[in-house]
Amino acid sequence: MNPKIIECVPNISEGKNLEVVQKCIQAIESVKGVRMIDSSSDPDHNRSVLTFIGPVEEVLEAAYQLTVQALQLIDLRTHSGTHPRMGAVDVIPIIPLVNITMEECIQASEQLAKRVGNDLNLPVYLYANSAKSENRKKLPSIRKGEFEGFDKKIIEKEWTPDYGPTRKHTTAGVVAIGAREFLIAYNIYLDTTDEKIAESIARSIRESGGGHKYLQAKGMFISEKNMAQVSMNILDFNKLPLYRVIELVRLEAKRYGVTIKETELIGLIPIQAVLSSFAYYAQLPMLDSTQVIEMKL
Amino acid sequence: MNPKIIECVPNISEGKNLEVVQKCIQAIESVKGVRMIDSSSDPDHNRSVLTFIGPVEEVLEAAYQLTVQALQLIDLRTHSGTHPRMGAVDVIPIIPLVNITMEECIQASEQLAKRVGNDLNLPVYLYANSAKSENRKKLPSIRKGEFEGFDKKIIEKEWTPDYGPTRKHTTAGVVAIGAREFLIAYNIYLDTTDEKIAESIARSIRESGGGHKYLQAKGMFISEKNMAQVSMNILDFNKLPLYRVIELVRLEAKRYGVTIKETELIGLIPIQAVLSSFAYYAQLPMLDSTQVIEMKL
Repeated sequence: MNPKIIECVPNISEGKNLEVVQKCIQAIESVKGVRMIDSSSDPDHNRSVLTFIGPVEEVLEAAYQLTVQALQLIDLRTHSGTHPRMGAVDVIPIIPLVNITMEECIQASEQLAKRVGNDLNLPVYLYANSAKSENRKKLPSIRKGEFEGFDKKIIEKEWTPDYGPTRKHTTAGVVAIGAREFLIAYNIYLDTTDEKIAESIARSIRESGGGHKYLQAKGMFISEKNMAQVSMNILDFNKLPLYRVIELVRLEAKRYGVTIKETELIGLIPIQAVLSSFAYYAQLPMLDSTQVIEMKL
Repeated sequence: MNPKIIECVPNISEGKNLEVVQKCIQAIESVKGVRMIDSSSDPDHNRSVLTFIGPVEEVLEAAYQLTVQALQLIDLRTHSGTHPRMGAVDVIPIIPLVNITMEECIQASEQLAKRVGNDLNLPVYLYANSAKSENRKKLPSIRKGEFEGFDKKIIEKEWTPDYGPTRKHTTAGVVAIGAREFLIAYNIYLDTTDEKIAESIARSIRESGGGHKYLQAKGMFISEKNMAQVSMNILDFNKLPLYRVIELVRLEAKRYGVTIKETELIGLIPIQAVLSSFAYYAQLPMLDSTQVIEMKL
């Protein structure tokens, strides 16, 4: 029996104080069987994205321990950053990876939501594939009004939490938990500081701008790197291979005399996505994954 | 305990009659635990390269069964092709892949050589890292004179076989068996039929032409595809990444107004080699193999 493996990508509202982020990672890693994949902190956003994987029960336990820790260390009353947020742990996505269905991931997300709501006294909204109503499917809709607005929003009938009290957690706000499909989070840094150029490129390639169906993109300025960035989610890497995203951005950047400086992968990438893009650049008509091995000598 | 995994890449002297090749593959696959990776037949060379992997004992058994089968089906007295050859099974390389040392692969190759020599009455030369003398390290030195020349060559004191009789096998000639380091066999097809262009490119990039230390290359015409090909072995994929080979060939081809039409991977490629070349094209400063997973839903 091969174990059912899921991915969990909590976003926490701390991107400046790396000591706090480190303690949150330690809470995740304290659970045996869970593997930490990536941690990406943005001081401007004042937000970190943590990626870990493992068998279902272990991942749920690690997500719970992370929430316990974040509630102790993060106080949203004094939090500021450019990214909208509603909770100390803002969102906890549960993603199917190996031998598991979306239905099972929805059940897992509800199990976690119930525990977090009941035991931590934190209001929980089920979102994405776990959402119980249409207006809870997308995060921006839930997050609207942000931490500060939830004193009022939470008592509106439409916004009664799915689990936990109908009252904002004083320091940790509320959290969204839900199952969603896997996506590749991929950022391209441009040889310019001009955020407008990045945003204009993003607009021309994303679905909402009439571009690619499986692409979410936005432009931003990353002060840490002093570069503009096209920040993207690739929702279906089979239908929209990475190489096409890279070359599309390159093409559109040319219009502004701008080139790609470097790129960045947040979290996981499936080997299948690497192989198909490598095959494109290498002009290999076929690259069978059975031809690929991991050498260890 | 993780098993010791080796690769075996026998070259057999049949590249036209695919029924014979198929029977040889079946002989390999008849051994449980062995996984066939690739089979590549060239009718002009009249030669096939078979790639399989598995635990040591199973791979040795499969290589033996293949030899038994090839001896029944291939008669070198009527064999012709553009590739030099000395045996029905021309060479059997044994390559370390996982959890195994070169020393252990040398021992494995000797075990196979002994069995093939004694039980099949086939003269065996230990070559590459298994060679007992300097002039048996490289295949061209052993193979010189080819099948037809071995009636005389084999009775020279210098060319007494390491195992088996000091007398050429009537139909199957002789075989070289030995342990060698892993290599990537990679071919680039050009948008030309001119073999001279491929050879000129090969000369300019290979070690023996003053080019890359870890690159063997030759130019040839592949009638099946009606294209010239730069045929290469990359001896150290860490020191000479694939992308550099591809872009070097592209660069040199430009001199002749020629472009790359497609490329071809024979046998195995380590995931590390794919990641490093993908990272180059994607301009990823770092791509940690821990970020790469195999999704299976």
